[in-house]
Amino acid sequence: MNEPVRVGVVGMGTVGSGVVRLLVESADHIERHAGRRIVVEKAVVKDPSKARDVQVPGGRISGDFRDISRDPSISVAALLVGGLEPARTIMVDLLEHGKDVVTANKALLAEHGPELFELARRKGRSIAFEAAVAGGIPIVAAIGECLAANRIESIRGILNGTSNFILTRMEEDGADYADVLALAQQKGFAEADPSMDVDGTDATQKLAILAHLAFGVWVPWAEIPRMGIEGIDLDLLTYAAELGYRIRLIAVASRSEGRLAMRVAPALVKIGTPLAETRGAYNAVSIVGDAVGRMFFHGLGAGQMPTASAVVADIIDTVVGRAAITFRTTGVLDADSPAAKIGGVDAPDRHFLRIRVKDRPGVLARITGILGDHGISIASVIQHDASSASDAVVPLVIMTHACGSSAIQRAVATIDASDVVSGRSVCLSVLDD
Amino acid sequence: MNEPVRVGVVGMGTVGSGVVRLLVESADHIERHAGRRIVVEKAVVKDPSKARDVQVPGGRISGDFRDISRDPSISVAALLVGGLEPARTIMVDLLEHGKDVVTANKALLAEHGPELFELARRKGRSIAFEAAVAGGIPIVAAIGECLAANRIESIRGILNGTSNFILTRMEEDGADYADVLALAQQKGFAEADPSMDVDGTDATQKLAILAHLAFGVWVPWAEIPRMGIEGIDLDLLTYAAELGYRIRLIAVASRSEGRLAMRVAPALVKIGTPLAETRGAYNAVSIVGDAVGRMFFHGLGAGQMPTASAVVADIIDTVVGRAAITFRTTGVLDADSPAAKIGGVDAPDRHFLRIRVKDRPGVLARITGILGDHGISIASVIQHDASSASDAVVPLVIMTHACGSSAIQRAVATIDASDVVSGRSVCLSVLDD
Repeated sequence: MNEPVRVGVVGMGTVGSGVVRLLVESADHIERHAGRRIVVEKAVVKDPSKARDVQVPGGRISGDFRDISRDPSISVAALLVGGLEPARTIMVDLLEHGKDVVTANKALLAEHGPELFELARRKGRSIAFEAAVAGGIPIVAAIGECLAANRIESIRGILNGTSNFILTRMEEDGADYADVLALAQQKGFAEADPSMDVDGTDATQKLAILAHLAFGVWVPWAEIPRMGIEGIDLDLLTYAAELGYRIRLIAVASRSEGRLAMRVAPALVKIGTPLAETRGAYNAVSIVGDAVGRMFFHGLGAGQMPTASAVVADIIDTVVGRAAITFRTTGVLDADSPAAKIGGVDAPDRHFLRIRVKDRPGVLARITGILGDHGISIASVIQHDASSASDAVVPLVIMTHACGSSAIQRAVATIDASDVVSGRSVCLSVLDD
Repeated sequence: MNEPVRVGVVGMGTVGSGVVRLLVESADHIERHAGRRIVVEKAVVKDPSKARDVQVPGGRISGDFRDISRDPSISVAALLVGGLEPARTIMVDLLEHGKDVVTANKALLAEHGPELFELARRKGRSIAFEAAVAGGIPIVAAIGECLAANRIESIRGILNGTSNFILTRMEEDGADYADVLALAQQKGFAEADPSMDVDGTDATQKLAILAHLAFGVWVPWAEIPRMGIEGIDLDLLTYAAELGYRIRLIAVASRSEGRLAMRVAPALVKIGTPLAETRGAYNAVSIVGDAVGRMFFHGLGAGQMPTASAVVADIIDTVVGRAAITFRTTGVLDADSPAAKIGGVDAPDRHFLRIRVKDRPGVLARITGILGDHGISIASVIQHDASSASDAVVPLVIMTHACGSSAIQRAVATIDASDVVSGRSVCLSVLDD
């Protein structure tokens, strides 16, 4: 056996504690896979005096990340703090001081990926980030290594466990968004401030990282069209179910006519398809490659030990030398890589509309007329018996045939500006496969 | 860019042709992922004069594998012939002559894995075999690398596309086994001689390879209990559906009380669970790791280009040096690795029984009495109206609560030896999650 490898862990929150626990408790198992002992040399935390469930071997805890970056005995650092700062400063310092870095911080990579990757390459170091996307699901390795012979055509994912937990509970319990969110917070599935989860930010940042791997372009995540789940009410789920669908927050990146279409938004997914059967805090990713066809991955996308599983796999990869090899060609730009032209593609999808109409004669004719004017044809309509109150507002649900997203957006804008509707319509795309 | 790498391809059947096609048509894309050009230097076939759809560059085709093993310009060989001989002789010769080998031949590895791995290690070469199990699904990389931080607790897979295609068509079309098999052969989903697929041999060989990766033991595949799908008739599928299940050919390896339980057999899988939703020629694998929890992978498990995708990924891994690193610790024996004690574990499962009983008074009491004598309690019973003919034979379907497999086997043997049944009963285990 070789000399042990000494690892520094920056951040002992949920994931950091899980990583230390796994490295300690499964040390023998991990040693066999790495070919040498992996030792937690030091952990850095905000408050070293705080009591902790997980003990760092020898109690080697520090409040200063420089105790890792300046320690020549440490060759690999796991950066397990969230957010942009001080994470960015720490990563730069670690790379500058010759450490290989493993991280789970998706916001950092989505925001500063290009400069951090460039710095790592200049310093001859690697950044491994399996845990940054979809927790324990090895999707980064799958795209970057296992499907390397394929040109990726599309990626669709359920990348945010909190949103998926909320949508699943609403659908299964018939509960309202606000009640389920409160339950999720109570159970620890949602943060005290869940806004980055439910507004789609988290999923969008992960999608930007996957697109870099699959298409070789760094798309600024904030430019990716995004819609969260805050507007999804129980009625929408019920109508979707009536039509044979569920609603999931779906992140999509697809190559079409040499361009890249990306978005994060709730979408209808057909019951029985793998994305529709992805429940609770699970994540799922469906990838189409030109040789392999459609591949589907499903697993726990968050949580302490699933995420720690991915971090430690990356630490092993770094120790044995695989990470250095992989990082050299990570996100290499294809000659035929799509330009990062977001929203430039008008991919035809079926759409689901929920329009709150005033219950008056002629309204359906008016709405369908507007859709027809925009070249959109209708696959099905649901309008249930309204109340008898005159001029009551009732929901009208329409499923269209495939149409371009710009056409449907124009049609919905026209409908919402008309005098027969009340409030804004909801327009979701429909995924049938 | 570095010097190009020269690859030899042994075998130009379906998979070999796909590999050559992918290496040629996606050469630029693959070069970026490998960091250097990968060139098909030579292909070896049985009959070099035969006309082919896929052309080898420069027409460099030979009838003698020694033209690859003796060519010092070739560093990597893809061994893409099936069966044991001459595949074994060729692989030994390639390794002896210093070639790294990539293969899709599961029978060869299941039968001769230990000696071939030993030879490769002695020669300082690697064997990469992603394509040998579940085609395009990167399950070998997932277990060997991505889940390396986990102790694997169980593996369940649908590993034979032909069997799954047949079961799915029977279930969806209400067609008989023989008719669907004929259709599958006509469509090219089943071989002219499909016996290794439908009798479970192919899935068992793949399971033996996965168990080596996950548990560090080489289990002789022929010792793994196996049952094929030949005995699955339409009635069984109908009763299963009535109870909320489908029938799939499931390969299982699970660690329990320090031992390893393995088997390949048709089993009932609950509708809505991922294995039940795996249809047609798709493969699926569900893995439970102690840290990551349950992971699920789904994709095309066979076919020209999905398999070629896995072979070429392995060629890239070999070229960049990842395969050599990975192969060093492939199948390393855990100190706590379960003894390869097959069938030694009496894991409690629910069971589904189909018993053909003589339609006489007291029969149900007799059968349930035998089950009770063996400590097996009954969850549900289906017996439909019988014909009015006296002493007619009618099917009796029983779902048990969890019971040990040895108890149920003894009970079924007793039932089948009694005078109230006609023919052998079918006993399948039931997977609810």
